[in-house]
Amino acid sequence: MIGEGLEGRQRVVFEAVTPEIDGGRFPIKRVVGETVVVEADIFSDGHDAVSAVLRYWREGEADWHETPFEPLVNDRWRASFTVEQLGMYRYTFEAWVDRFKTWACDFQKRVDAAQDVHVDLLVGAELVEAAALRAQDGASDTLGSYANSLRAGERRVDYALSPELAALMERHPDRALATRYPRELAVTVDPLLARFSAWYELFPRSLAAAAGGHGTLQDVQAQLPRVAAMGFNVLYLPPIHPIGIAHRKGPNNTVAAGPHDPGSPWAIGGLEGGHTTVHPQLGTLDDVRALATAARELGIDLALDIAFQVAPDHPYAEEHVSWFRQRPDGTIQYAENPPKKYQDIYPFDFETPDWQALWDELLEVVRFWIAQGVTVFRVDNPHTKPFAFWEWLIADVKRATPEAIFLAEAFTRPKVMAHLAKAGFTQSYTYFTWRNTARELREYLTQLTQTELAQYFRPNFWPNTPDILPEHLQVGGRPAFIARLVLAATLSSNYGIYGPAFELLENTPLAPGREEYLHSEKYEIRQWQERPDHLRDIITLINRIRNDNPALQANTSLRFHPTTNDQLLAYSKVSPDGANAVLMVVNLDPHYTQSGFVDLALDDLGLGPDQPFQMHDLLGQGRYMWHGSHNFVELDPHITPAHIFRIRHRVRTEREFDYFM
Amino acid sequence: MIGEGLEGRQRVVFEAVTPEIDGGRFPIKRVVGETVVVEADIFSDGHDAVSAVLRYWREGEADWHETPFEPLVNDRWRASFTVEQLGMYRYTFEAWVDRFKTWACDFQKRVDAAQDVHVDLLVGAELVEAAALRAQDGASDTLGSYANSLRAGERRVDYALSPELAALMERHPDRALATRYPRELAVTVDPLLARFSAWYELFPRSLAAAAGGHGTLQDVQAQLPRVAAMGFNVLYLPPIHPIGIAHRKGPNNTVAAGPHDPGSPWAIGGLEGGHTTVHPQLGTLDDVRALATAARELGIDLALDIAFQVAPDHPYAEEHVSWFRQRPDGTIQYAENPPKKYQDIYPFDFETPDWQALWDELLEVVRFWIAQGVTVFRVDNPHTKPFAFWEWLIADVKRATPEAIFLAEAFTRPKVMAHLAKAGFTQSYTYFTWRNTARELREYLTQLTQTELAQYFRPNFWPNTPDILPEHLQVGGRPAFIARLVLAATLSSNYGIYGPAFELLENTPLAPGREEYLHSEKYEIRQWQERPDHLRDIITLINRIRNDNPALQANTSLRFHPTTNDQLLAYSKVSPDGANAVLMVVNLDPHYTQSGFVDLALDDLGLGPDQPFQMHDLLGQGRYMWHGSHNFVELDPHITPAHIFRIRHRVRTEREFDYFM
Repeated sequence: MIGEGLEGRQRVVFEAVTPEIDGGRFPIKRVVGETVVVEADIFSDGHDAVSAVLRYWREGEADWHETPFEPLVNDRWRASFTVEQLGMYRYTFEAWVDRFKTWACDFQKRVDAAQDVHVDLLVGAELVEAAALRAQDGASDTLGSYANSLRAGERRVDYALSPELAALMERHPDRALATRYPRELAVTVDPLLARFSAWYELFPRSLAAAAGGHGTLQDVQAQLPRVAAMGFNVLYLPPIHPIGIAHRKGPNNTVAAGPHDPGSPWAIGGLEGGHTTVHPQLGTLDDVRALATAARELGIDLALDIAFQVAPDHPYAEEHVSWFRQRPDGTIQYAENPPKKYQDIYPFDFETPDWQALWDELLEVVRFWIAQGVTVFRVDNPHTKPFAFWEWLIADVKRATPEAIFLAEAFTRPKVMAHLAKAGFTQSYTYFTWRNTARELREYLTQLTQTELAQYFRPNFWPNTPDILPEHLQVGGRPAFIARLVLAATLSSNYGIYGPAFELLENTPLAPGREEYLHSEKYEIRQWQERPDHLRDIITLINRIRNDNPALQANTSLRFHPTTNDQLLAYSKVSPDGANAVLMVVNLDPHYTQSGFVDLALDDLGLGPDQPFQMHDLLGQGRYMWHGSHNFVELDPHITPAHIFRIRHRVRTEREFDYFM
Repeated sequence: MIGEGLEGRQRVVFEAVTPEIDGGRFPIKRVVGETVVVEADIFSDGHDAVSAVLRYWREGEADWHETPFEPLVNDRWRASFTVEQLGMYRYTFEAWVDRFKTWACDFQKRVDAAQDVHVDLLVGAELVEAAALRAQDGASDTLGSYANSLRAGERRVDYALSPELAALMERHPDRALATRYPRELAVTVDPLLARFSAWYELFPRSLAAAAGGHGTLQDVQAQLPRVAAMGFNVLYLPPIHPIGIAHRKGPNNTVAAGPHDPGSPWAIGGLEGGHTTVHPQLGTLDDVRALATAARELGIDLALDIAFQVAPDHPYAEEHVSWFRQRPDGTIQYAENPPKKYQDIYPFDFETPDWQALWDELLEVVRFWIAQGVTVFRVDNPHTKPFAFWEWLIADVKRATPEAIFLAEAFTRPKVMAHLAKAGFTQSYTYFTWRNTARELREYLTQLTQTELAQYFRPNFWPNTPDILPEHLQVGGRPAFIARLVLAATLSSNYGIYGPAFELLENTPLAPGREEYLHSEKYEIRQWQERPDHLRDIITLINRIRNDNPALQANTSLRFHPTTNDQLLAYSKVSPDGANAVLMVVNLDPHYTQSGFVDLALDDLGLGPDQPFQMHDLLGQGRYMWHGSHNFVELDPHITPAHIFRIRHRVRTEREFDYFM
């Protein structure tokens, strides 16, 4: 009748645990030093008091730690712990009917009702004696004394109700019939860079000093001070490997390349080698190592591109024919999105019977670059490879290299993007590029930052990429570039730009209605021409503001504030300690001055309704005195399309604004 | 590196399955003939087409069944199956990358783009040949012919695109790399009575013909025609067992009973026996069996009370001392809610080391009554016994007796009530009694019928019980009784009344501000006095309306409609086939006439915006012609506090109203 192994006296149940992704199937993500706040419904039958602990453990450590849950309302409980080190943490729970806590609570009521409590004191003494037996430390004697005091003496009731006894009993509970949560949930703990990063993308081959030349990794190294001065902390290079010749694409993605056309860096592999080889015109492995080292000295992580596909010339295409799908005519299946054909690319066939060897080889590629000192990777089209593959690869890499960061470049359906993040990607490209109106941005950011998605999906906002010159940058001029830069850099603590094109306001599309660049660097070597209205100063300022304001280094505090003009988007962020609060107001109209009122949610900003406060515009350096929730803003996009206000609380007099300190 | 047993080529994933209670930990509930609609996010990496099936199985049957999932939008899929029989069903899923479907879709695009498809036809032929090998039936030859037709001949493209081939291939998919959902989810399939029931509660001992007498089960049997005529299908009796003498409660719950006071039926057990004994003054086991049989002949299920607690005189208290908690003074711990004491009741100690014997004995109690022909049980205070106990007991009972129904009388915290339903209770008492305003009712009913709760928690609404005479019945007079009756009987497909007190408008509380009845039948034998304004006719009418209108026999279609007067609550229900639609409008003010406009959500009622329709008031028999969404209603509570409209669509002329048919 009664199942084997069933302990029918475990009376506490757990429900609705948060965070818990898909019933614990996937880890949540944090960076070192962050807190994991856990909530659960925890309750028992009847009216007995329940106690519960959160248990957590860092993989590899000897012991589990425990911290108590505190009750909220309606049987909801909360506990938290801080993840201090890189790696994988686990957490789970244990809860039990706490007979002493129940007894103490009832006892107080009996005393208050002036009931005869002499038998109840004996009940309490038994519970304390049992705790004395459990206690392995010096508490045993103390508990024994308490038990005696409850059994006899003048001040029995006082002893029974003493906070010291309650604390002692809390440290020595009877957990024999405790319920353990059946799952251990996981936390991937990444470096801070996973949450707070500014990426700069450039094509090394375009860095040659002279027209017609081919830039090198050493040229990239020469750019490092400039990139560092602008305040970026990741420098990302498209693939640096040999480029295939067969079916090589010409300028503007034309089918036939001329003899001097360099081809797309994503058409990886040629006679010189494949995914672990450096393009001879870019340099050598030594150059990669030197670049990574030099970058790190300037506070920059070098990021390489992982594009798991090959050009027809790639050595794999000959050595591992089984890794590709064969066509009945004996050829290898090239990439397609019918009716479009990409004959310069062979995708791997992940359904090959030889899949294990393929997986192992691709893991070795990543390990190879880690061995050269690179730990940040931008992964090209991860959504065209199996989820299980990424989950395995990233987990394997991060066991040895927990600081590794994988940015998923998956522009695809929302659930696929979310699932890649669940499977392990550290950061993700997003739909930011196509979210332009106030409503679109509010809805999208609310989803990214205020739902379960925020537990595992870290957005990385890019106003442009070599693949995407969005329409608003084509038509909106310098104000649009600045507005999109402010939005990317302040809505998301991770952001990046395809640098030269962005700095220099490049806005010519391949053709009207297209979102590709004309003369894209994907197919051509460019010589970028300096221009006086370049954006380097404002980029530098925005990165400095991000570095100076902890509020902008995370996303969960993001709140939108209503405005009376839908062209004005207002939103705030606050640092975890509440000490740093910023409010952004962005004019989404790149052409005309827009004005209106911002209705601040003062509570979210730690402001009282009657408190004046100073708004210090970190972009324009203006200072404004605001008061209450309803405040006027006007933005001329040709002067500045945005404010980034640091909110400075007024304490008593103007000399006590906190910026005086 | 690659885990043992990992099949890395299973590319499809499942997410966000509904219904699925707590990751599949608990079953959902249905009644025979209902449909289980399942949705899931189902997707693969890349752009390949996916196929998926829902698999389901009734425990005890030989085979699993399959039905295909159909895609909705955004990678969401839906499938459904009908549960035809009592018992436990299981469901799970399987999905795979469908290479032929992918090929066919791509092939169509190639043909549309007028591309050379001769190699693609060969690819298709290979896929068809593989299916021919898989097909065990006559399809094998047909598929072989198709493959040949794709390889050669004039009309190769037509054959490739033929719907017949697509259908054949759909029946013989390649599922070698299919992903199976890792969990089997469960459905408890109950009889219709679990979803649609009208309960009538009475105290048998009050049925004696003469004052001072003690009613019997035979007296109850004599009442059956009256109860059946009123339209009830469950007759529930409080405990029918011997009542303890020690610490017996007197009238109005006084501590000392007089020598002739009958005691509370919930103080179970005495010299005559315990939970499997019939109170000698009520009759015999034969009477129980006869009553159950006679009731069933009139379409009524007899429901008994399961109250797992004992009076101090109960045989268990002597024979199984270990099932109770001992106090240090050698006495047994009586029930308490400090500072209140209930010395007439001993609760079981479910933490006893002897818990298995206790569980077994209590299961035997239920089995005993099932053996007498009783399968419906109202369970007293289930929330003071462990969840695990109920889960085990109900599952065990329902394996042999799947028609068994357990109604949980748990008036406690919301999550505890929900968890008891998860653990197996068929129906549940609710907070209905304390939900009186339009807003309270809308919020509570929306939660009960439109959230996951509806998958496992079946509300049973009681306007009164022997424990609860709510304040609005004390002060609202006959209109309040009728309004609360209409609300209970139409908001919830399961409802019940503590009959004699309700029919006869009993409204005297124990004391001002108390919700207990004065001279409660719990402690006294009552002689109910007939009165001319009794509610039997309206109760009978409402039960007939419920029986005649399938819309009122379930809750998931419930929709509230805004009104311009917050004293008017408007809501509708529609039958699954859409043929039967009813609209209720209830005046929540028992004192004054209230009027206002109802803003009908016409879509929910299957009505067009320009369509006139007839509202037939099944309570008052009036017929009203309505048109559009905005319609006037006025209700004088002293005439009738509610309308129950059957909505009759106008087809073309007045002779074609469907009520003419």
